[in-house]
Amino acid sequence: MLPQHFDLLKGLVNPNYVEQGAQARNSRSKHFTALFTQRRLPDVGWKEDDIQALLDEMASFDTNNFEGNVGVGEREGRVISDLVRRRHFGLTHGIGRSGDVMAEQPKAAGSSLLVQLTRYLALDAIRLAGIKAAKACAVLPAATGLTMTLVFLALRQMRPEGKYVVWSRIDQKSCFKAIGAAGLKPIVVELKPIEGTDALGTDLEGMRSAIEQVGADEVLCICTTTSTFAPRVPDFIDEVAVMAQELQVPHVINNAYGLQCSKCAHLVETGCRRGRVDAFVQSTDKNFMVPVGGAIVAAPSAALVDKVSGLYPGRASMSPVLDLFITLLSLGAPGWTGLLQERKENAKWFEERLGTVSSKLGLRVLKVPANRISFCIDLSPLGRSTDGAEDMDHLTFLGSALFTRRVSGPRVVLCTPKPGAATLDVETPADTIKVKGKYQKVIDGTPFECYGAHTNFYPCCYLTAACAIGASRKEMDAFLERLEAAVQDYKNGAGRKEKSGIAKPALGS
Amino acid sequence: MLPQHFDLLKGLVNPNYVEQGAQARNSRSKHFTALFTQRRLPDVGWKEDDIQALLDEMASFDTNNFEGNVGVGEREGRVISDLVRRRHFGLTHGIGRSGDVMAEQPKAAGSSLLVQLTRYLALDAIRLAGIKAAKACAVLPAATGLTMTLVFLALRQMRPEGKYVVWSRIDQKSCFKAIGAAGLKPIVVELKPIEGTDALGTDLEGMRSAIEQVGADEVLCICTTTSTFAPRVPDFIDEVAVMAQELQVPHVINNAYGLQCSKCAHLVETGCRRGRVDAFVQSTDKNFMVPVGGAIVAAPSAALVDKVSGLYPGRASMSPVLDLFITLLSLGAPGWTGLLQERKENAKWFEERLGTVSSKLGLRVLKVPANRISFCIDLSPLGRSTDGAEDMDHLTFLGSALFTRRVSGPRVVLCTPKPGAATLDVETPADTIKVKGKYQKVIDGTPFECYGAHTNFYPCCYLTAACAIGASRKEMDAFLERLEAAVQDYKNGAGRKEKSGIAKPALGS
Amino acid sequence: MLPQHFDLLKGLVNPNYVEQGAQARNSRSKHFTALFTQRRLPDVGWKEDDIQALLDEMASFDTNNFEGNVGVGEREGRVISDLVRRRHFGLTHGIGRSGDVMAEQPKAAGSSLLVQLTRYLALDAIRLAGIKAAKACAVLPAATGLTMTLVFLALRQMRPEGKYVVWSRIDQKSCFKAIGAAGLKPIVVELKPIEGTDALGTDLEGMRSAIEQVGADEVLCICTTTSTFAPRVPDFIDEVAVMAQELQVPHVINNAYGLQCSKCAHLVETGCRRGRVDAFVQSTDKNFMVPVGGAIVAAPSAALVDKVSGLYPGRASMSPVLDLFITLLSLGAPGWTGLLQERKENAKWFEERLGTVSSKLGLRVLKVPANRISFCIDLSPLGRSTDGAEDMDHLTFLGSALFTRRVSGPRVVLCTPKPGAATLDVETPADTIKVKGKYQKVIDGTPFECYGAHTNFYPCCYLTAACAIGASRKEMDAFLERLEAAVQDYKNGAGRKEKSGIAKPALGS
Amino acid sequence: MLPQHFDLLKGLVNPNYVEQGAQARNSRSKHFTALFTQRRLPDVGWKEDDIQALLDEMASFDTNNFEGNVGVGEREGRVISDLVRRRHFGLTHGIGRSGDVMAEQPKAAGSSLLVQLTRYLALDAIRLAGIKAAKACAVLPAATGLTMTLVFLALRQMRPEGKYVVWSRIDQKSCFKAIGAAGLKPIVVELKPIEGTDALGTDLEGMRSAIEQVGADEVLCICTTTSTFAPRVPDFIDEVAVMAQELQVPHVINNAYGLQCSKCAHLVETGCRRGRVDAFVQSTDKNFMVPVGGAIVAAPSAALVDKVSGLYPGRASMSPVLDLFITLLSLGAPGWTGLLQERKENAKWFEERLGTVSSKLGLRVLKVPANRISFCIDLSPLGRSTDGAEDMDHLTFLGSALFTRRVSGPRVVLCTPKPGAATLDVETPADTIKVKGKYQKVIDGTPFECYGAHTNFYPCCYLTAACAIGASRKEMDAFLERLEAAVQDYKNGAGRKEKSGIAKPALGS
Repeated sequence: MLPQHFDLLKGLVNPNYVEQGAQARNSRSKHFTALFTQRRLPDVGWKEDDIQALLDEMASFDTNNFEGNVGVGEREGRVISDLVRRRHFGLTHGIGRSGDVMAEQPKAAGSSLLVQLTRYLALDAIRLAGIKAAKACAVLPAATGLTMTLVFLALRQMRPEGKYVVWSRIDQKSCFKAIGAAGLKPIVVELKPIEGTDALGTDLEGMRSAIEQVGADEVLCICTTTSTFAPRVPDFIDEVAVMAQELQVPHVINNAYGLQCSKCAHLVETGCRRGRVDAFVQSTDKNFMVPVGGAIVAAPSAALVDKVSGLYPGRASMSPVLDLFITLLSLGAPGWTGLLQERKENAKWFEERLGTVSSKLGLRVLKVPANRISFCIDLSPLGRSTDGAEDMDHLTFLGSALFTRRVSGPRVVLCTPKPGAATLDVETPADTIKVKGKYQKVIDGTPFECYGAHTNFYPCCYLTAACAIGASRKEMDAFLERLEAAVQDYKNGAGRKEKSGIAKPALGS
Repeated sequence: MLPQHFDLLKGLVNPNYVEQGAQARNSRSKHFTALFTQRRLPDVGWKEDDIQALLDEMASFDTNNFEGNVGVGEREGRVISDLVRRRHFGLTHGIGRSGDVMAEQPKAAGSSLLVQLTRYLALDAIRLAGIKAAKACAVLPAATGLTMTLVFLALRQMRPEGKYVVWSRIDQKSCFKAIGAAGLKPIVVELKPIEGTDALGTDLEGMRSAIEQVGADEVLCICTTTSTFAPRVPDFIDEVAVMAQELQVPHVINNAYGLQCSKCAHLVETGCRRGRVDAFVQSTDKNFMVPVGGAIVAAPSAALVDKVSGLYPGRASMSPVLDLFITLLSLGAPGWTGLLQERKENAKWFEERLGTVSSKLGLRVLKVPANRISFCIDLSPLGRSTDGAEDMDHLTFLGSALFTRRVSGPRVVLCTPKPGAATLDVETPADTIKVKGKYQKVIDGTPFECYGAHTNFYPCCYLTAACAIGASRKEMDAFLERLEAAVQDYKNGAGRKEKSGIAKPALGS
Repeated sequence: MLPQHFDLLKGLVNPNYVEQGAQARNSRSKHFTALFTQRRLPDVGWKEDDIQALLDEMASFDTNNFEGNVGVGEREGRVISDLVRRRHFGLTHGIGRSGDVMAEQPKAAGSSLLVQLTRYLALDAIRLAGIKAAKACAVLPAATGLTMTLVFLALRQMRPEGKYVVWSRIDQKSCFKAIGAAGLKPIVVELKPIEGTDALGTDLEGMRSAIEQVGADEVLCICTTTSTFAPRVPDFIDEVAVMAQELQVPHVINNAYGLQCSKCAHLVETGCRRGRVDAFVQSTDKNFMVPVGGAIVAAPSAALVDKVSGLYPGRASMSPVLDLFITLLSLGAPGWTGLLQERKENAKWFEERLGTVSSKLGLRVLKVPANRISFCIDLSPLGRSTDGAEDMDHLTFLGSALFTRRVSGPRVVLCTPKPGAATLDVETPADTIKVKGKYQKVIDGTPFECYGAHTNFYPCCYLTAACAIGASRKEMDAFLERLEAAVQDYKNGAGRKEKSGIAKPALGS
Repeated sequence: MLPQHFDLLKGLVNPNYVEQGAQARNSRSKHFTALFTQRRLPDVGWKEDDIQALLDEMASFDTNNFEGNVGVGEREGRVISDLVRRRHFGLTHGIGRSGDVMAEQPKAAGSSLLVQLTRYLALDAIRLAGIKAAKACAVLPAATGLTMTLVFLALRQMRPEGKYVVWSRIDQKSCFKAIGAAGLKPIVVELKPIEGTDALGTDLEGMRSAIEQVGADEVLCICTTTSTFAPRVPDFIDEVAVMAQELQVPHVINNAYGLQCSKCAHLVETGCRRGRVDAFVQSTDKNFMVPVGGAIVAAPSAALVDKVSGLYPGRASMSPVLDLFITLLSLGAPGWTGLLQERKENAKWFEERLGTVSSKLGLRVLKVPANRISFCIDLSPLGRSTDGAEDMDHLTFLGSALFTRRVSGPRVVLCTPKPGAATLDVETPADTIKVKGKYQKVIDGTPFECYGAHTNFYPCCYLTAACAIGASRKEMDAFLERLEAAVQDYKNGAGRKEKSGIAKPALGS
């Protein structure tokens, strides 16, 4: 409604009430103005109604929603199912143009505006998370893995000689596959144990020698990772960045769910400040609690970001952008920083509680101080309690036992304490829980020993649990209770007969 | 509700009424059974309520919706904005696993089921459209351009020597960029005029000699296109397929919006039957009227389709899959074939009407019999009416005039009738209408003369208009009226003063 | 968004696109302006998006939606379930104040505006339906029956001596109960057969003598009815109105679903013009296809309408008002008059088709020319086909047979052709179909012979079917097919064994 | 989905995942079973998804949603606006039959089930609130005022001699109008000051003598009220009930928002146990935080409840019933009792804080210990601070000042400390804030001195603020801050010049 409408309404009800309405309208208007001028997370999270109102306005700017519009192109944003149309608020043109996925669309002014606003908000969120060096970003409707591939492909257009990616090992499949998907060759640099802890960290010297071996010119980029399952810790981004600068090799960071952790953010920030970082990629779902499907490419300068969005051939789904837009507006700056702070405190609290429960069960939490998201318990005492190797295998039962207790996400990792202990090249059966490690696995032609453990040999079998953004203490407490019950069951011999199949106890029982 | 619930309800109201309810419930149940067993488009389109009910059921199978679920992984499908959660029906885990984007997710049984069902429905829809040779498909959350890139990347893993894509020219940017994005080199084969018509068609001999020149082994694939703006016509898929088989070169078809046209579908079908087709890619939005963001890779055999989904690194957005699922269920088989039939009849009707209106305006429709979607009017008489070259430029005003009359999608193409007539390498200014042709354009390093016209020289300037799926006769009639008015204005000298800027008349006036 | 916002957006994307958005925004704005100034059904039905936008704006004017509002009253529009809040668009304050249910609420400017606008729209719709004499109306969140009670109670405050309601018999229960609920005494005036037809019409002389017998001063009002099941026809409103004026007795019309029928509307219009009509009440659900729950009290002058809304003690649900508002905006004037016209034509068409089908079955349609909504078939030949009275009872099986074929709404009426044929005072068992007539029924102390037939004796048993607003020809055709099948089954002896119970065939079989 | 569907799905994805789905499905199923068998508030509040699923199931049992249903009645639940249909979940038939508004509808089995379930849930909620004597209830789609009228009308059918309602004065308009609307005569019994406090309470002797004066037979009922603005306190329900039993006069309690207060609930409970209570009526919106529009008639025996629902002529809106159903399911028993407990504690806390703030401002909280919802501050010192009577009038400015600070709901009551001080019979101008007292007001012919103060004379002017269910401490704290600021402004002379008009400061400034 426009100011003149309020005057018209004064003939319908008491003008004082209309005046109230106009003033309420102004409150919303001020939010709009603040967003359009400041282009950063609002000082207070928006109410759903205000977000909805803005989306409705924006949708009305797209040609498919114009009154009396006639379309004689091949793509006119027509949507035949009203259920589908509604869930997209009428924003049906997707994002981008054939030349650039972040570009404006002539037919879709509203969608185009939303894309630009989302970029600003995302950049602000990244800075608030601690990476103030971020100067440009693109929000892509592709999850972290594919986005990494796109970054590699874009780099390749800029550095056609580059064919190797020097990669600090992390046993997360899509991360590694992203290299092969781009038609590139990975050079895997194994991790090193960090003295005085149970942690695994970056082998800086290994990286340097890998680069020197093939020659820096042939290296497309170095690829490091921040967020990771313990006992791996974030790569030493700062030091790698310095080396990258020295060797004049691009450096891309997989910051998948690192935005939620001040430790990871600090590493990226320092890397950008002191050395070379060409881009860092983060998941929208894992950091901002939206559905899977988007990632943000950010960088200390716009060059590579623009190259990535310019490389993208054609239009793309708007859905992940929209989800992020809605979420960032509804959180506002305090909502976002509050979530970050809460997670940090929860993680600290959880680690302590996990220690207490572990002690009670005769187990211990592995010492991995640099990983502030994921925590491990050494399960070996459980395996050893009777008679050796086969029992270690049986530890997988713990995973099943937790799953049937409606715990999702823990991983049981079976490790070989010395080389050659297991050489089967098999995929773990498609199962309802993740059991990792022990076996060799070949991905895109590269074999990995003890896949899942980030290393060929690790001295113990363990269970990991993460305290991620959005997890509540109530939830983590429930996990600890269920873990205790599962270990107790395990000790009582549960599952030994049914070992070969899927866990038998009914879900939720 | 389960059968036993109905018995419980009999104590609450008249048992006869409960019985009615149970019988109504059975109707819905039968639809579910039919879908799960037949896995094809339903005989009657589903009501929105039934679709919603199925989605709600499926969502309840994903762990994030389990009652009492506790998540200790790094990705647990948490969604913080309820508005976002609702618009995805609680389906927040996306699709795929790190190893395969079409694979099942342990944490998301419901989402996984929806993905598989959507593949079956999509395959059925492709067959109903006339491509019975289709035996496998994947529905990807990437639009046609990026999906083409993914197909090229997958082919490359199977054929590492291949570095060229032999490509029959079509002036649609994302299509061409898809090649460069994959790090491949395009070999552009120019089109040939088709005798006795105004059409431009495939230069088969040109393709063959291009392949022979670099050697078939170095050719990753031939890339042809079906749907296109007139006066280009669909590539001679059938003949290219035979040649591809003979030369043992893979053949990928860009069938962007060809599924909606029996002519295009027939060409693909024949190609598959008689020669070699490795995959054909079609847009979900352009064929099925869903929001932009998805494409279907289909093929006569599963090999390349599986390779593409196995190449995809990591998970992806479920949104485009979901939109297609909802739409196909709501259409049902008769809805889908009805739309195809209606479009076919509308296109015929429109071509006639366009002829009549053109005659009235002293213009003529170009003779491009093999293009059944897009139609052209020769605008040269308008340009010539006064004094030559500069006037041709002024034809762009027609585009603006249509745009201000709320017509989206028409293209005015300015052509150079002979070589060298224009050599500026500029991008048309980011404008609200598409004006194509005349100028040279360099994409990913390759220069194209007269970009937008599919050819370096074309004897006349023209305007294109498409009769796409979902367009109604009422809408097309409105277009013809507005076209007539715009041409009339043009003849009366409108816009001559304001030529340099954007059209001044207010939108919708 | 306000005009200044568009300027701010020009820094974000191409100003031309922003301009497009602003112009699209103007289209919506014009609709708002038209509604607020003209206050009648729009010339074109509004799109859902525009309606939603207006509702969202209005909701933001209610204090419960004010940003930062603090409530220290006992009723602050707080809604704890978000699902509930959403379905009411945040409009939670209901309508009215303690003094008047149509009055403005200080806390709810938006809701108040919606109430006033709905009244204007409803009045316009009544006029477009043919009752141009309507000068005032109130939309009440009470269905027809209770609204009639409220009208009687209001009249009573104006005419405290009145204790009788002179009522032209119509066998529709809530209509009669409305009198007793108001604490008044009904005087039932039986109908008279209309010569040359099978119809039952108003006994004008009977009414006059009833009034004279108790004295006009003691008569609160005359109550007539327009819409009714055949063979009853609309009361002779015009003649009753003249008599009401002459005798100075108020006259209230139950126009339940009469707005949909030009015949009924014309009678009310003529009554208002020529005689005395104090108010006429119509259902919102039966005329405007909204959910059950609202009625409109309209009148040729505001007096009684205001009295009714002023009588209503306290606030009330906004839901029925909101449903009507949305519906009238989405229909617009052409949508509403189109529905009326379509129903009229459908009814004519249906009557003919019903005649044809009846003939084929050896039955006939009763001659009731003045009822243009409801139609009857004489079922007696079916009852007589074997051996007499008991067979007439068995005609009820036809109702069951239709119900199991998913036909809702037909009535089988069993009549006694002469006095005393049946005297049981029983309620028909709570059944899934309506079987009427034959039995005596006592409502609020008043006995009715042959209840359901509008008369004590009627020469035949019959089945009624209505062609109401919103029914499609396809639906009516399906009815005729199912009727034919049911009668055929009946003739073949179906149901004779299972007569006592509910029909056994499964629903939908 | 039915058990057999899960088997069918096992061919589509890993059977283990399907099994997970089936188990998740069972969790929902168990909730359904518990609801249908126990028919009371669930032990844990339902998730929105589960509620939605149940509503969708129920809606599918109504004939209008049957697949292939054909309607030939005059009311078939057709809804033309999809927006309207959706917001009612397809439940369009309303509630009740012509004979009884709580009765089952043959055409709407699902709606009928929802009505019955809601009655059970509401009864359970009433008992949990402390009125265990409640044995029957009806949830009516009419707010408290009209519901009281309906109770009076029903009582009248049972007690035709009764024409007076003996009513303990409460200055809440709809409550009093409910009597007149039913065509009854009120006998107003003035309140009495309660010694040792500032409170006003029931004049038991006054009631008895009022009854004796007209004769108990002519008294339709006694009407008492629990929830009320201070300084009035709840009527002495227990003692009145004993007297009602003794005198054999029906007793109806207006328990408008008393369900939220254990004090009020206890009074009703005691009344039912020790004396006579025929029915007690409570608002759904004021107690359960749903939109305005419903009330619950409850009683220690079913007689009057059934009479009320049997009196109701015809069908009615389902909306208020549906809102209550959704809300009660989502709250569950702990949610509901938690809200009650929280309010109790908040009220105690608020009273203390109000005392502190008042002291600071040189004011005092009136001593009204028996009112646990509403609190008063004596404003007289502010009025007296300068020079007398006119200043008391100016106290109304405080209301405006609070309103412009976005405080809704406080009341400023101007009282006459002795008879005859003000005799104007005017309505306070329809204003954005409530200013009460001082003036005489005539409602339905009965004059009230000093309307708004519950008494003809009260020794001071005061401001009331309530701590109602759903109000948060944060909100109440904001009120106290704004109150302090407003009083400070007042003391500084604000508003003295603009006194005559509406407050000038902009809302929210």
